[in-house]
Amino acid sequence: MDIMTESEINECFAFASTIAKEAGKVISSAFYKEKDIETKAGVADLVTKSDKEVEKLLFDSIRSKFPSHKLIGEESVSAGDVSPHTNDPTWIIDPIDGTTNFVHRFPYVAVCIGFTYNKEIKFGVVYNPILDELYTAKRGTGAFLNGTRIHVSQEPDLRKCLVMTECGSSRDDVVMAKLFENMQSVLSTPVHTIHSLGSAAMNACMVAKGAAEAYYEFGPHCWDFCAAGIIVEEAGGVLMNGDGGPFDLMARQIIAANNPEVGKSLAKRLVQQISFPHDCQ
Amino acid sequence: MDIMTESEINECFAFASTIAKEAGKVISSAFYKEKDIETKAGVADLVTKSDKEVEKLLFDSIRSKFPSHKLIGEESVSAGDVSPHTNDPTWIIDPIDGTTNFVHRFPYVAVCIGFTYNKEIKFGVVYNPILDELYTAKRGTGAFLNGTRIHVSQEPDLRKCLVMTECGSSRDDVVMAKLFENMQSVLSTPVHTIHSLGSAAMNACMVAKGAAEAYYEFGPHCWDFCAAGIIVEEAGGVLMNGDGGPFDLMARQIIAANNPEVGKSLAKRLVQQISFPHDCQ
Repeated sequence: MDIMTESEINECFAFASTIAKEAGKVISSAFYKEKDIETKAGVADLVTKSDKEVEKLLFDSIRSKFPSHKLIGEESVSAGDVSPHTNDPTWIIDPIDGTTNFVHRFPYVAVCIGFTYNKEIKFGVVYNPILDELYTAKRGTGAFLNGTRIHVSQEPDLRKCLVMTECGSSRDDVVMAKLFENMQSVLSTPVHTIHSLGSAAMNACMVAKGAAEAYYEFGPHCWDFCAAGIIVEEAGGVLMNGDGGPFDLMARQIIAANNPEVGKSLAKRLVQQISFPHDCQ
Repeated sequence: MDIMTESEINECFAFASTIAKEAGKVISSAFYKEKDIETKAGVADLVTKSDKEVEKLLFDSIRSKFPSHKLIGEESVSAGDVSPHTNDPTWIIDPIDGTTNFVHRFPYVAVCIGFTYNKEIKFGVVYNPILDELYTAKRGTGAFLNGTRIHVSQEPDLRKCLVMTECGSSRDDVVMAKLFENMQSVLSTPVHTIHSLGSAAMNACMVAKGAAEAYYEFGPHCWDFCAAGIIVEEAGGVLMNGDGGPFDLMARQIIAANNPEVGKSLAKRLVQQISFPHDCQ
């Protein structure tokens, strides 16, 4: 693989926004219709025909324009197409983040397109076609919502924060008990409140635009937070693992916070570290 | 008090929509500005200058047009103006449902105007000025979002439901433990997922428009769900207490569900009934 230039990365970034909008049209047109629903890893891990259709649309578009690039997508991995994450230019995609929301017509769904090169996230695009919100960020150039620059909240004290998290799709008693132990610990910090929108990417984008101070979760995949992760960073925020250590895109855990103080304070409240098998190894 | 005619109730209903929109303008204009924040019953029970200003605006408007009507409002009650709920025409008002969201600029805030006569809810208006969503319902005439009729979801099986609830503002260890025991019990039904938007009224409106199947919570007040409650009913849903028994507007607990089957199934999962002192007695 040749070395990528900045202008080549820019070309990919612009293309990502274009295809996110195209994918959004497919999602919007299916949103209020009846869906064919299947389950994947468990009764609460849903997939629809639209997830697969949108991933194929995105993969086909990228393969045709950038045939040498690697692709990691939620539905392909679920179908068994697992390959390791490399230094090559790699598109990391969730066709519909918030599939359960999509099924229920709850308005938080998003097309997520992240891009890594030398294993570093270079840009991310998150598009919610129901609310028509396009979040974009390229490394070093800021984060934007529909073209307007966005910034994280300036709050330094976890006790005055609005925290996002999720109940996740595991219905294993031990996992659920740990999840709620963490949630009670965080709530009793005390924080202002805890909210859940049902989409990792949209939760993280709430941090990016300053409507929440932090988002944490154990269990989501790289495609759930790759794109949104750089949007948080470029809005002035930070990413870390659930224990407050360095962020690992493949570790299936994330703290996305408005600043390191809030992120580290939150990590200390996560009394239960919950492990899941890593992505793409 | 003379007997109210249907046309008098209609006049009040129309007036409620008008003043909700006016109040919404005050909320919108303050939404992205810095706020003066005070706490009320606890560190997570917030109030701002805007809550008081909007309640005064609504009360002044109603008093001037309907001087004989009774008023129950969140901020007046918090300030000690507690009077019993009677058979008289009574406006039950939350000037900003979701004050914590308002403080954080999280887009789920709502002006809530409910109206009771002979202690029955006759109409409700819930207006989210950030998303410009006006939910309205008058007894017997259906529920509407920005003028378009809305309906609850038809799902009969709790295991396929999206459930809304909240962490609430109590940071008492015993209350929090019960709250999370309920949440784990509901999640392990298993339901599809649990979401929290930080506004009782907006959670209930998600049920009314079919984007969620049920909302439950122990602790909110009559002004949090009076207006949204009739919107759920008129969209085809049902209200009940947390134990599945008859709904009591003053009991500080609610299950708002798309149908009785889902509501009753949910009540059985609420292993901890959490009591709060009743409103307005």
